[in-house]
Amino acid sequence: MATEPASRSEAMSRGPGRRPGSADTRGEILTAARRVFAEKGFDKATVRGIAREASVDPALVHHYFATKEGIFAAAMRLPLSPETILPELLEGPREEVGERLVRLLLRVTAAPETREPMVALLRSAMTNERAQGMFREFMTNALLFKVADRLGVPHLRIEAAFAQMFGVVMARYVLKLEPMASADPEELVALLAPTLQRYFTG
Amino acid sequence: MATEPASRSEAMSRGPGRRPGSADTRGEILTAARRVFAEKGFDKATVRGIAREASVDPALVHHYFATKEGIFAAAMRLPLSPETILPELLEGPREEVGERLVRLLLRVTAAPETREPMVALLRSAMTNERAQGMFREFMTNALLFKVADRLGVPHLRIEAAFAQMFGVVMARYVLKLEPMASADPEELVALLAPTLQRYFTG
Repeated sequence: MATEPASRSEAMSRGPGRRPGSADTRGEILTAARRVFAEKGFDKATVRGIAREASVDPALVHHYFATKEGIFAAAMRLPLSPETILPELLEGPREEVGERLVRLLLRVTAAPETREPMVALLRSAMTNERAQGMFREFMTNALLFKVADRLGVPHLRIEAAFAQMFGVVMARYVLKLEPMASADPEELVALLAPTLQRYFTG
Repeated sequence: MATEPASRSEAMSRGPGRRPGSADTRGEILTAARRVFAEKGFDKATVRGIAREASVDPALVHHYFATKEGIFAAAMRLPLSPETILPELLEGPREEVGERLVRLLLRVTAAPETREPMVALLRSAMTNERAQGMFREFMTNALLFKVADRLGVPHLRIEAAFAQMFGVVMARYVLKLEPMASADPEELVALLAPTLQRYFTG
């Protein structure tokens, strides 16, 4: 590739013990992944197709990102992959899953560096048709339905829970409605956890 | 005022018994109002300031739109003014206010011609700083806090209710998450009304 030498030297600066080129290969896979997700959406994109687009072996893609969900999260610069969120949410008493979800989302959205990429994805999903399709497929198939199916919750109920927290994140951080924007996280947990718990346990 | 004769002559075209001129005066007031709201935000804009910007008498602005809330709704092409929504919401048994709110919002958002201007305002509030300030002030001071104060509900709770329904409208009509997008309105009422009712009655 024409750009490899430049990228290789960049790769080197990433840290000791790395062989030249590997940081850049990662970047090239992500660039290819963004193209493939934009063209095919999340559901139809495959690790193999992304590898082909990046001219690398699929095994290398798996090596860097483990799963398609992992590639998507990295390509969209999301701070967390479903694989790291879901266990935290699903482990623990069933009657506290609402509270765990509120705490998890408030923690993840509290720091600008983890919040901003998520808000950027939501914003583009609301204004751009292609981003919308990708977001919809990822959100439902990689996140919401996985949680719902694991907990035996109907899909409509998990989407009602998603809608509540999507609205809270928007009202608190994007629209900055007061008193929501400055509310103490514990107050929000007390207010919102019972709502989510009701959706999860009926 | 300089433009009054012209505006007066257009008023006539609006219907029998009306003198020509007012339809255009109305349009000029709305154009002026959009400028004033964009510059000053909702709270600091005044009927007097909008009248001055449109070079008409404040009484004429009141004649067309009754209140600042009414001007804002018309200027943003909102299908409903707070004055028409609030009585419908507040009248009736207190223990059914959650259900009334869900029904009202589902009805208003079901038809594209009433939904689209609302979604457009929400979209621009999420992507444009100025629209955000206007939206925030209008949403809290002209709608949410009025309902909250009338019902004696803390402002944070009314914003949690807003967040739930904002999320539902986005998930159903903008992101088009299934099964939410195709869900029967009665199913949504049964699912969401208890959430809102809890925010309203604690």
